[in-house]
Amino acid sequence: MPIPIETLQRLTRPVNPTSIDFRSRLERLFNLISRPIMLQLKPQLFQQRMPELTKTAVMIIGGAEDKVHGRQILQTFFKRSGGEDARIAIIPCASREPAIIGDRYREIFTEMGAKQIEILDIRDRDQGNHSDWLNFAEACTGVFMTGGDQLRLCSMLSETCIMDKIRMRAQLGEITLAGTSAGAAVMGEQMIAGGGSGESPNRALVDMTSGLGIIPEIIVDQHFHNRNRMARLMSAIAAYPDKLGIGIDEDTCAMFEADGTFQAIGKGTVTVIDPGEMTYTNQPQVDTTEPLSVHNLRVHVLSHGDRYNLYKRALVAPIR
Amino acid sequence: MPIPIETLQRLTRPVNPTSIDFRSRLERLFNLISRPIMLQLKPQLFQQRMPELTKTAVMIIGGAEDKVHGRQILQTFFKRSGGEDARIAIIPCASREPAIIGDRYREIFTEMGAKQIEILDIRDRDQGNHSDWLNFAEACTGVFMTGGDQLRLCSMLSETCIMDKIRMRAQLGEITLAGTSAGAAVMGEQMIAGGGSGESPNRALVDMTSGLGIIPEIIVDQHFHNRNRMARLMSAIAAYPDKLGIGIDEDTCAMFEADGTFQAIGKGTVTVIDPGEMTYTNQPQVDTTEPLSVHNLRVHVLSHGDRYNLYKRALVAPIR
Repeated sequence: MPIPIETLQRLTRPVNPTSIDFRSRLERLFNLISRPIMLQLKPQLFQQRMPELTKTAVMIIGGAEDKVHGRQILQTFFKRSGGEDARIAIIPCASREPAIIGDRYREIFTEMGAKQIEILDIRDRDQGNHSDWLNFAEACTGVFMTGGDQLRLCSMLSETCIMDKIRMRAQLGEITLAGTSAGAAVMGEQMIAGGGSGESPNRALVDMTSGLGIIPEIIVDQHFHNRNRMARLMSAIAAYPDKLGIGIDEDTCAMFEADGTFQAIGKGTVTVIDPGEMTYTNQPQVDTTEPLSVHNLRVHVLSHGDRYNLYKRALVAPIR
Repeated sequence: MPIPIETLQRLTRPVNPTSIDFRSRLERLFNLISRPIMLQLKPQLFQQRMPELTKTAVMIIGGAEDKVHGRQILQTFFKRSGGEDARIAIIPCASREPAIIGDRYREIFTEMGAKQIEILDIRDRDQGNHSDWLNFAEACTGVFMTGGDQLRLCSMLSETCIMDKIRMRAQLGEITLAGTSAGAAVMGEQMIAGGGSGESPNRALVDMTSGLGIIPEIIVDQHFHNRNRMARLMSAIAAYPDKLGIGIDEDTCAMFEADGTFQAIGKGTVTVIDPGEMTYTNQPQVDTTEPLSVHNLRVHVLSHGDRYNLYKRALVAPIR
């Protein structure tokens, strides 16, 4: 069962003492080794498929990305998926109008010149094991998850064969995986299912559930400054201080490379909330609507080109 | 010219190496020593006037404080102003309905049992030097600045004899000074005059001007999480990284003691944005609407009872 040596090296490299990703890495290793679907896996190193300048990535988009003018983020996804060689799977399951939103993205990627586009219009969990779509999940070079409702997306796709394959291929660096809005929210192991705004941070301000675990170490919030979500992401991080909070503005993307470095792309900012040095929170003790104390957060606001490494919990010099 | 020794000690004590308050302290010392109004000052130590348990404070209130039920914050102001011995000056100048709002607070403090209440209903800058009101500013034990428009308040009051007297007496610990909403915004040397929300941090999101300089080291924002103002306070702090950002939610107060320690009181949270360790911002270089980078902010969310020292830039053990 040939797991690429690079992947094993990545998952077993020394742990940064301030990082708490050791357990999640163990889990990922365990999943890699134990999942039955691995038996059918024929790993192909990405370099064999695509030019080096267009490596795969996980692209987490804060919603409302430009679909009309420069299409900077969608163009980047297209290139990272192989450009004119791209075979793109669109997953519109978060939406209540999957046919319409699926077609919208199909048109965009068709205009860009993608080689093949399939809309995985999965309407129930059984279809998540559909062999044609499973084959395309195996053959594609890029996967795009649309907006809608993240709970809908997860209830339809989590622990289906298709999602297991997509997660594994994304984690192995074989495909570029992008998600916008609801499609961004699902990226972590813990997911913000919903919540409120306009209040002080408090436990009732955020509903947490399981996400798809593409990048287990993070909790994503989207439409971030646009919809006043700082307090809810802080409330989420107070509940899961082993995670890193990533708040992504509209038409903005946190693009993760295989080494855990991500770059901010687009019109707005990516906010990082790092509780690694947190000295106190009253979160476990207080009632659900009581205001939270959260002391000693490290916060970064990243604009286009800024880079940050998830595992080092530190900024990385930008490539400008 | 007897400046209390405690005040001099406070202003000349050793500087925390990570703090940048040295210059502002020098400025305060210079002001204390040089202002002509000092010549008329007959400092009286606060202990001579009020019981020890009710020391003076500067109370910065995030707006919409409870005026009906428990009135926790207003009750605290009343007690800190001397309780039944309180002589309270209400400054309604921020409001376009100064008579109405002034009467509202007069009723509240009358019900609580204040000894004397005057509404300094100053309608132009000349009245800011009115001798009757100046005498009451000298005689009062508490000053309350209402909400409204902070620009209106500053244009009417800054550099008037009455405001000079109030600032000095507050800084000397002779009176309790409270401001809510617009009355809170004016507390710093730099003030947020207005701005937007719902955008990524950017220079155009916040309009800065001079405040009344009661606590020069801070930039205050109010109605904080309620009105999605994290991005604008971050934008202000990127422009003035020698200041400390204080975001105060509604019905919440940051109550400053003479030693620079403040305590969060009330229903919501006080957010501290400390750029003391900031490693990078693109603020000076970018166009006004470009998104900002701000790296390595230290952020604290304080709830009721939490305490923080402005000069040490550190949390202080709560008194619970």
